Amino acid sequence: MDSMKKGWFSEFGQLWPGQTFSLECEEVLFQGKSPYQEVLAFRSKTYGNVLVLDGVIQATDRDEFAYQEMFAHLALCSHPDPKKVLVIGGGDGGILREIAKHQCVEEITICEIDQMVIDTAKKFLPEMAKGFDDPRVTLFMGDGCAYLEQKKNEYDVIIVDSSDPVDGGPAETLYAAPFYRHLKEALRPGGLVCTQAECQWIHLNIIAELIRFSRNLFSHVEYAYTTIPSYPCGQIGFLLASTGDSCKTPKRTIDESLNKYYNEEIHNASFVLPSFVRRAIYKDENSQ
Amino acid sequence: MDSMKKGWFSEFGQLWPGQTFSLECEEVLFQGKSPYQEVLAFRSKTYGNVLVLDGVIQATDRDEFAYQEMFAHLALCSHPDPKKVLVIGGGDGGILREIAKHQCVEEITICEIDQMVIDTAKKFLPEMAKGFDDPRVTLFMGDGCAYLEQKKNEYDVIIVDSSDPVDGGPAETLYAAPFYRHLKEALRPGGLVCTQAECQWIHLNIIAELIRFSRNLFSHVEYAYTTIPSYPCGQIGFLLASTGDSCKTPKRTIDESLNKYYNEEIHNASFVLPSFVRRAIYKDENSQ
Repeated sequence: MDSMKKGWFSEFGQLWPGQTFSLECEEVLFQGKSPYQEVLAFRSKTYGNVLVLDGVIQATDRDEFAYQEMFAHLALCSHPDPKKVLVIGGGDGGILREIAKHQCVEEITICEIDQMVIDTAKKFLPEMAKGFDDPRVTLFMGDGCAYLEQKKNEYDVIIVDSSDPVDGGPAETLYAAPFYRHLKEALRPGGLVCTQAECQWIHLNIIAELIRFSRNLFSHVEYAYTTIPSYPCGQIGFLLASTGDSCKTPKRTIDESLNKYYNEEIHNASFVLPSFVRRAIYKDENSQ
Repeated sequence: MDSMKKGWFSEFGQLWPGQTFSLECEEVLFQGKSPYQEVLAFRSKTYGNVLVLDGVIQATDRDEFAYQEMFAHLALCSHPDPKKVLVIGGGDGGILREIAKHQCVEEITICEIDQMVIDTAKKFLPEMAKGFDDPRVTLFMGDGCAYLEQKKNEYDVIIVDSSDPVDGGPAETLYAAPFYRHLKEALRPGGLVCTQAECQWIHLNIIAELIRFSRNLFSHVEYAYTTIPSYPCGQIGFLLASTGDSCKTPKRTIDESLNKYYNEEIHNASFVLPSFVRRAIYKDENSQ
């Protein structure tokens, strides 16, 4: 099958062979090629506007809140008092919108490599891109790894909102041990990182490897997930790596009336994994 | 798109407009038309053998355990001592396989309408169909509603493993109040039913209606879900309706080493819902 055929967009990827999710497309809104990736936006029949990078769905109007809310609030509610937050990637702005719900945060820096992602989101996914409007936000255009290497003992929370670790893609280096060492060094005492950590149904090998090497660096490394229909297998996970306490129980609450997905109970529940996942990724422990 | 094209099977359904999940097909194993529905089995590239009824994926070798384990154990572990269990539908045998893990169960009756489903599962999904081999199992071929109407005060647990409530399809009557009245009358004191209850991302209206009318009949009505990649949006839900206590906490444990998905912690977590779902289906309550 082709990725756009008879009015349907189909998502093919080397990380999910033999399966694909498709959305009916009503209008292609934008197609371009940046120095880093192919950027596509289209209006779907039932999921609103859709942002696609290198053929992979990044966000749809209909379900993006599940990803943005869980990613941001799992991270920020696990820290007792986050003041300085760094986002690497996340150029669509959705994570910024959620971080801005935390009154205690004083500075939000976002490091995005691709201007075309920001411009496309601002034009076609304004409900996400409005995250850039918060006065606490500073945008740094450039490579997240290079930015991070200069930062020591600076952030309370770092969120790595990256695309998948495709060979030769812009996110490949973000799934390797050297990057996690830089993440740790950029944290203040008690700080934590939360990274996009793929799907437990199809990427157990990636997840197990992330956990293996990050456990040598952090005091707690834990995997959580959210459901989200437009991602492969209908879900995606997050790795929470903390220099302080476990992240499984929130340290703070936020005004839950603002949220559509995240609540205090689902914070706890999102760390509870099916038995086959536990065995594969926490295999060195008796229980988790 | 057609449902089988260029070696891919795509699942189209009136209950999930504008989206479809596809699996790469290596060989069609069986295609037939029973008096009730179209039956298809094929060998997929990455999900093993797949059973399809009326164009909708029912089970794949790769992920069926998530559905069967969660469905059976959420129900049976919520009852303190289940002895007589009835399964309506479930002709693939997977639910039977899981019920058989409960030593306390003395009789398992299954009421399936379509012999072609049983025969196809026995031939092409033997790991599920082996559930029929347990000596406690009795098979009744026929209509589940008609069977149920004759039964009063008989079962500890009833599991309704049906297909979707498609207009004119074999499962349409299973999503209506009269059927739930018969379910209640067939239960012994303290008994409970667990029914296939669709997906919280796309069927909130169906779920809310099921809860509305069943709350007039049962002392506790609660919604839980499991993730499963080959179902629409990557998940499916269950309605637990009890004449006794809440089902949110298991009353018993089983040998978890036999399971790939279900464990005691995920029993509890599976009832924790995203905020948008809580608000839609438990709207008459302050919290759930």
